Amino acid sequence: MRTSLLLLLFCASTIVFAQSEDEKQLKSIYDLALTEGQGYDWLNHLSNQIGGRLSGSVQAELAVDYTKAQLDSLGLDRVWLQPVMVPKWVRGTPEFAFIETKPGLTTNVPICALGGSVATPDGGIKANIVEVKGIEDLEKLGREQIEGKIVFYNRPMEPTLISTFESYSGCVDQRYAGAAEAGKFGAAGVIVRSMTLRLDDYPHTGSMSYGDVAVANRIPAAAISTNGAELLSATLKLNPDIKFYFKQNCKQFDDVQSYNVIGEIRGTTHPNEIMVVGGHLDSWDLGDGSHDDGAGCVQSMEVLRLLKETGYKPKRTLRVVLFMNEENGLRGGNKYAEVARNKNEKHVFALESDSGGFTPRGFSFNCSDENLKHIQQWKGLFEPYLIHMFVKGYSGADIRPLMDQDLVLAGLRPDSQRYFDHHHAENDTFEHVNQRELQLGAATMASLVYLIDKYGTIPNTKIKG
Amino acid sequence: MRTSLLLLLFCASTIVFAQSEDEKQLKSIYDLALTEGQGYDWLNHLSNQIGGRLSGSVQAELAVDYTKAQLDSLGLDRVWLQPVMVPKWVRGTPEFAFIETKPGLTTNVPICALGGSVATPDGGIKANIVEVKGIEDLEKLGREQIEGKIVFYNRPMEPTLISTFESYSGCVDQRYAGAAEAGKFGAAGVIVRSMTLRLDDYPHTGSMSYGDVAVANRIPAAAISTNGAELLSATLKLNPDIKFYFKQNCKQFDDVQSYNVIGEIRGTTHPNEIMVVGGHLDSWDLGDGSHDDGAGCVQSMEVLRLLKETGYKPKRTLRVVLFMNEENGLRGGNKYAEVARNKNEKHVFALESDSGGFTPRGFSFNCSDENLKHIQQWKGLFEPYLIHMFVKGYSGADIRPLMDQDLVLAGLRPDSQRYFDHHHAENDTFEHVNQRELQLGAATMASLVYLIDKYGTIPNTKIKG
Repeated sequence: MRTSLLLLLFCASTIVFAQSEDEKQLKSIYDLALTEGQGYDWLNHLSNQIGGRLSGSVQAELAVDYTKAQLDSLGLDRVWLQPVMVPKWVRGTPEFAFIETKPGLTTNVPICALGGSVATPDGGIKANIVEVKGIEDLEKLGREQIEGKIVFYNRPMEPTLISTFESYSGCVDQRYAGAAEAGKFGAAGVIVRSMTLRLDDYPHTGSMSYGDVAVANRIPAAAISTNGAELLSATLKLNPDIKFYFKQNCKQFDDVQSYNVIGEIRGTTHPNEIMVVGGHLDSWDLGDGSHDDGAGCVQSMEVLRLLKETGYKPKRTLRVVLFMNEENGLRGGNKYAEVARNKNEKHVFALESDSGGFTPRGFSFNCSDENLKHIQQWKGLFEPYLIHMFVKGYSGADIRPLMDQDLVLAGLRPDSQRYFDHHHAENDTFEHVNQRELQLGAATMASLVYLIDKYGTIPNTKIKG
Repeated sequence: MRTSLLLLLFCASTIVFAQSEDEKQLKSIYDLALTEGQGYDWLNHLSNQIGGRLSGSVQAELAVDYTKAQLDSLGLDRVWLQPVMVPKWVRGTPEFAFIETKPGLTTNVPICALGGSVATPDGGIKANIVEVKGIEDLEKLGREQIEGKIVFYNRPMEPTLISTFESYSGCVDQRYAGAAEAGKFGAAGVIVRSMTLRLDDYPHTGSMSYGDVAVANRIPAAAISTNGAELLSATLKLNPDIKFYFKQNCKQFDDVQSYNVIGEIRGTTHPNEIMVVGGHLDSWDLGDGSHDDGAGCVQSMEVLRLLKETGYKPKRTLRVVLFMNEENGLRGGNKYAEVARNKNEKHVFALESDSGGFTPRGFSFNCSDENLKHIQQWKGLFEPYLIHMFVKGYSGADIRPLMDQDLVLAGLRPDSQRYFDHHHAENDTFEHVNQRELQLGAATMASLVYLIDKYGTIPNTKIKG
């Protein structure tokens, strides 16, 4: 017994001594994040002192000022604001809707205007409903069955997909293009089932587009909660002649001035090679935008802080970019890429966190096979932290405009199960973010950035997909 | 373009045809769990209609009746109650505590009695405080510095460990044995920092033991919330002479009759080889026991339902066991193993879910190296479901008494980050369980049970550790 104990101790000390520099650096990063993380405090301020940060709002501007001041306090080499004009859409007074089964017999249901929608007429819209499972149903129904009615898009998110982002992708066309398409058949308005896998009473907003539909022909679009959608669908089955009423006062104003917030640590040996880590500072207006994407912003800020505090001096220039207007315009992401192009800046890597502040599981990469293989060599280093996903896939909306450069794009992949419970809804709030989960995400991002900086990427390999 | 699309479609259909029987069975299990799962509804009843189910309470008996009735409705081959006598400890009226910095100048702090503790005298206890970081400090302080005082155990859970269960293991001796040990030095009572990594206002209860300390010499023990512990510690640093007051009215009654709830599907070809899947039906009394361990119970019930509904007929006998009294006695687990021994029942496999209803990450096994290697062959089958942990480790308290049999013991390993936010506290409640996470856990368990049943385990290999 005693011998085996001694042996065990000997082995343990050998393991400690055999620890590589990389293992040590990752351990320092994770330890610091879990003991003295700043991200949760920053998020608390963004969420509880500022709140929802819709582009063009006072809150969005307060968030620019706050995050710039925080980056200033970190002692980076440079912190600046990058001007960008953003759309300003305002929700107005709370929306209101009901199902009318007979004249005078009504049931209220929770709705919210989709971002970018026009208002209803002052008195609201009351019309018959036609339920569809998607845009493709419109053609089958034709103008005679749609004209003057409210089109109700009710295809639910597919529950059997393990990644809830895949389920979302399979549904979101109803929200984004549903009004533009239904308008072509003479619909009076559209109601879209909220993009969540839960049955609850929260309507989930999100961006929509009228495409090239003339302003005069635009019809109002709203999201209905999933419970509301179930009730509406069941009521329609009993009586297809019921009416639906809704009223919303949203309005599009002229574009206003806003900013991307940027901070950087200048590279020691390859200062002209830029690595970006970021999230988006704007959010929807219903909740406080804690998961989408306050979490990604504070994690990205934390990446620079963690590397700095652990004493690591990046060879390449490391930038945190807090992008403005991801939700309803992507102006910040486009502006950043445009300026980079104009200045001939060479980007080798960009990482976005915009999938919620949940337990990190790994990354998906938009890069060449060669670079994926190169990165997958580091998988073992992440095993102690239960990070296991290193796959091809989506990176992030804000960094995608950089794609014409010779770089690796990456997205943090947190556990996705709860994301759409909160996404774009009133309950995307601070208390639903767990401090450790948030900080583990930041540490995981910082670890990848460290490895990319140290070992570089494989240049001149084409991004596929 | 068209050609490559056709090629893609061809490849996709080939993949579908090449799907193995096992892949198909796992897909059926996960699909059913995510579309028509029952677990969440069962948990809703256990949590919101019954509530906290402390051994010996009316709620525990209601839970026995309810789960038996639900198992009866599943059309299993046999459902029965296994009698077991359990301890009955009752909290009594709410506990009360304050820090007294000067006579008359007090600050209330949240506490709760530890399970199994004696009451304070009717008027409570007021005494000076001595803060320690663990039981080992008592010896150093000695009787002269402890006698007549309240010992305040304040070693926090270690935040740098990625598994929060490891952090818990490193602290829980303070709660379990703190009172017995401090009593030996003449302490008047003990206050223990709550076992959670969060700073908040919830005191977390849990079992404690007086060991062989005579009834007359037992001192009362309570948990203090982490915010309370921080305040107490800071106040002590300013003035070591402050006093602490607490009062609790808990009481131990005589043992009462209770039951393990058991259901089984009889094996078609090896009915004498038994596989167990289970959780514990009792819980603490402060919350409603949704994560600990309502989740594990409904997931275990769901395993049998999922296999039955997908048309799988196990070769071996598959039992769900809802164990009584895991929290403060383990009488149910011990009784089950005792009866199995007396009846000469041969158990080949036992799986427990008692780590919360969070996103499943895999399993830890208490089994031989040969069996671990055997099971690890199936890792690829779990990859589409993001299940990646197949490691040696802890299985579960209730199934451990079966260890003298030639079997594989396993524990479901869900994501652990949020578990101790809720563990044994008032906020272990239904709304903190996500339906998909819960059902993914059940499907993961059912998939392992299916594979174990189909391919068997390797017999006559000794369990190590």
